[in-house]
Amino acid sequence: MSLVVQKYGGSSVADADAIKRVARRIVETKQAGHDVVVTVSAMGDTTDELIALAAAISADEHPREMDILLTAGERISMSLLAMAVRDLGQGAQSFTGPQAGVITAGAYGRARIIEVSPGRLRDAIDAGDIAIVAGFQGYNQESQDIQTLGRGGSDTTAVALAAALNADVCEIYTDVDGVFTADPRVVPSARKIDRITFEEMLDMAASGAKVLMPRCVEYARRFNVPIHVRSSFSGLEGTWVVGETEGDTMENAIIAGVAHDRSEAKITVIGVPDVPGSAARLFEAVARAEVNIDMIVQNVSAVVTGVTDISFTLPTASVSDAKKAIEADKALIGYAELVTDDAIGKISLIGAGMRSNSGVSARFFAALRDASVNIEMISTSEIRISVVTRADMLDTAVRAVHTAFGLDSTQAEAVVYGGAGL
Amino acid sequence: MSLVVQKYGGSSVADADAIKRVARRIVETKQAGHDVVVTVSAMGDTTDELIALAAAISADEHPREMDILLTAGERISMSLLAMAVRDLGQGAQSFTGPQAGVITAGAYGRARIIEVSPGRLRDAIDAGDIAIVAGFQGYNQESQDIQTLGRGGSDTTAVALAAALNADVCEIYTDVDGVFTADPRVVPSARKIDRITFEEMLDMAASGAKVLMPRCVEYARRFNVPIHVRSSFSGLEGTWVVGETEGDTMENAIIAGVAHDRSEAKITVIGVPDVPGSAARLFEAVARAEVNIDMIVQNVSAVVTGVTDISFTLPTASVSDAKKAIEADKALIGYAELVTDDAIGKISLIGAGMRSNSGVSARFFAALRDASVNIEMISTSEIRISVVTRADMLDTAVRAVHTAFGLDSTQAEAVVYGGAGL
Repeated sequence: MSLVVQKYGGSSVADADAIKRVARRIVETKQAGHDVVVTVSAMGDTTDELIALAAAISADEHPREMDILLTAGERISMSLLAMAVRDLGQGAQSFTGPQAGVITAGAYGRARIIEVSPGRLRDAIDAGDIAIVAGFQGYNQESQDIQTLGRGGSDTTAVALAAALNADVCEIYTDVDGVFTADPRVVPSARKIDRITFEEMLDMAASGAKVLMPRCVEYARRFNVPIHVRSSFSGLEGTWVVGETEGDTMENAIIAGVAHDRSEAKITVIGVPDVPGSAARLFEAVARAEVNIDMIVQNVSAVVTGVTDISFTLPTASVSDAKKAIEADKALIGYAELVTDDAIGKISLIGAGMRSNSGVSARFFAALRDASVNIEMISTSEIRISVVTRADMLDTAVRAVHTAFGLDSTQAEAVVYGGAGL
Repeated sequence: MSLVVQKYGGSSVADADAIKRVARRIVETKQAGHDVVVTVSAMGDTTDELIALAAAISADEHPREMDILLTAGERISMSLLAMAVRDLGQGAQSFTGPQAGVITAGAYGRARIIEVSPGRLRDAIDAGDIAIVAGFQGYNQESQDIQTLGRGGSDTTAVALAAALNADVCEIYTDVDGVFTADPRVVPSARKIDRITFEEMLDMAASGAKVLMPRCVEYARRFNVPIHVRSSFSGLEGTWVVGETEGDTMENAIIAGVAHDRSEAKITVIGVPDVPGSAARLFEAVARAEVNIDMIVQNVSAVVTGVTDISFTLPTASVSDAKKAIEADKALIGYAELVTDDAIGKISLIGAGMRSNSGVSARFFAALRDASVNIEMISTSEIRISVVTRADMLDTAVRAVHTAFGLDSTQAEAVVYGGAGL
């Protein structure tokens, strides 16, 4: 007998019928001989509706009250789901985050899970019941308050429960069939990925793939919890996100997929004195505004003029804060001009096999050149190449790269490089 | 400085504007120099909507899950109200029932408050903040579960908090101006009662007056918490529900008011053997079905036939259960026939001064006679006379009695009897 943790997102429990369908799937899993612990998100648009209610009350931020407000959504769905499971003749108990022993720390609205004490869940499992846990929430022992985990919090809850219960798998049910080699809305021929490593998935998520949030994957990697991302509608096998094992690069395509991101903008600071400390002063100002930056590019120094330009990308929503912070330090930094640009897109190619294979970046840049896509910024890691393009060229770029690496489902098979060292 | 506990019902917090209005009232109370603790119900129809959601999922009863489902409503309203108060520049913290230290025992759906440990509320008060508590809910330490208190639970929460905090007054805000001498929808000339004793209010509530639930009044009487029932819309003085003090009967009208109840039905069991133990067997059967009965009448024994008839009233919703239970014991009880009748109404006249004044019942029955109202059953207590009439004569009966005791606002003043012993 194995222990399965299942997570159902808001679209999977959007209404009474959907909840009953999820209940049947849970009971089938139990009847197949597995113990089952379930984490559930708020129904459909409940969270958005609660946020709208709060906005109608107040334009200010009230993080503590906002957190307890939002946790109502998961409490509603968890209790309804428990009722639906019990109606099928299977014992079930619902638990709030605090009842499930999910202990959090950090700021309201984006708390971290620091510990899970799953005593009551174990009792429920031992009693033969399904334990159904409200996702996205936990208990801060210091403040004695309920906190939410921020975006993707229910996925993180599921992985944390799976880790604490030493579950065999954490199944993340969603409204798509798994993780794809590219966004199918951009690349209709994108293929479902059967198996991807934690590291690759982390880079996919951080580069704009929306199926899983980076923090959830990071948690799974840390505790080595296999994730199975699959559809709550189709019942098909989805994508397994797992640790890398020896020989993997022999068997797998070098490239996992192509991710893209439209949510960033670019700030270029022109005429920065080309002396030590300039960049530090600039990014200290940005950090003070609590803005997360992504890529940074500095022009080749122009010896003649003694000044240079620095560009960086950041979430579009943070542009105004960052701009204000930099302009406040204009005299200190000593730049000439600040230009913002939100018409950019980022394309990333991800694959663990990239480490041991030359030729990947050459093929990547050739594909972009052949598609007439101009490259504005470049950033690479061991298993990823990202470039910034004009926003209106992003889809073209994604399709071109996807095809160039043999990822289209119409192609015979993905380009397979030799193993490490070959 | 005094401590005021305020309770706002669902209609007082039905939408964002209503919540902001309540917030202003709270802040005004604080600015007038009082410490304020607030209990709040779920917004408008939220509880009904959650019940409907559960009904769409399941036709069965799931008491534990139902309770945690329903508590979401008060959590939403309490956090929104705290935001609205904070927006007015006044510190405020919201607390769930468990966070507020409301400890419950008993069955899900109708738990009792057995203890209040208001440490966190005291801390909030000491910090100068308004403490806003989710009504209707508490924490069962044995099961470690959240429970609801059943109908009128938020009022009871308010009174329990007021008792635990030794508050000066518990203000119950509602959508009417207070407790009236009769239901104004039946008697347009009914008057607002300025002051009523716990005992009278208990009998008014138990006899069908809907403003307060009996358990809330009972709790207030036990801990001697003055209740002020008033409108959240008008801001006028409402009705004070207080303990009886010496000299009260000198100053006050003998009659507090006239209550009526349309929610009961009558069962008559015909041809019951007129021997000891018959009634016991009948009501044992009813008790087994967990049906609460109200009035009981047994016919004068008919020596000739050796059989008698027994009638009793009970909630209309319980008729089917009671009938089944009695019919199951038909052979044991040995009756001839069972007749149910849901076309009855009950009118009650309540007044603490009744104790020391003769003539009240005579005037009561004369009023009914003059209005051609036939009396089917009679029941009395020290401070109350109730009779059962045909349902279609109930309004006529209420108006006639209301007028006969000088309670109409168009009358110069209420009939005032002499004090005790006069």
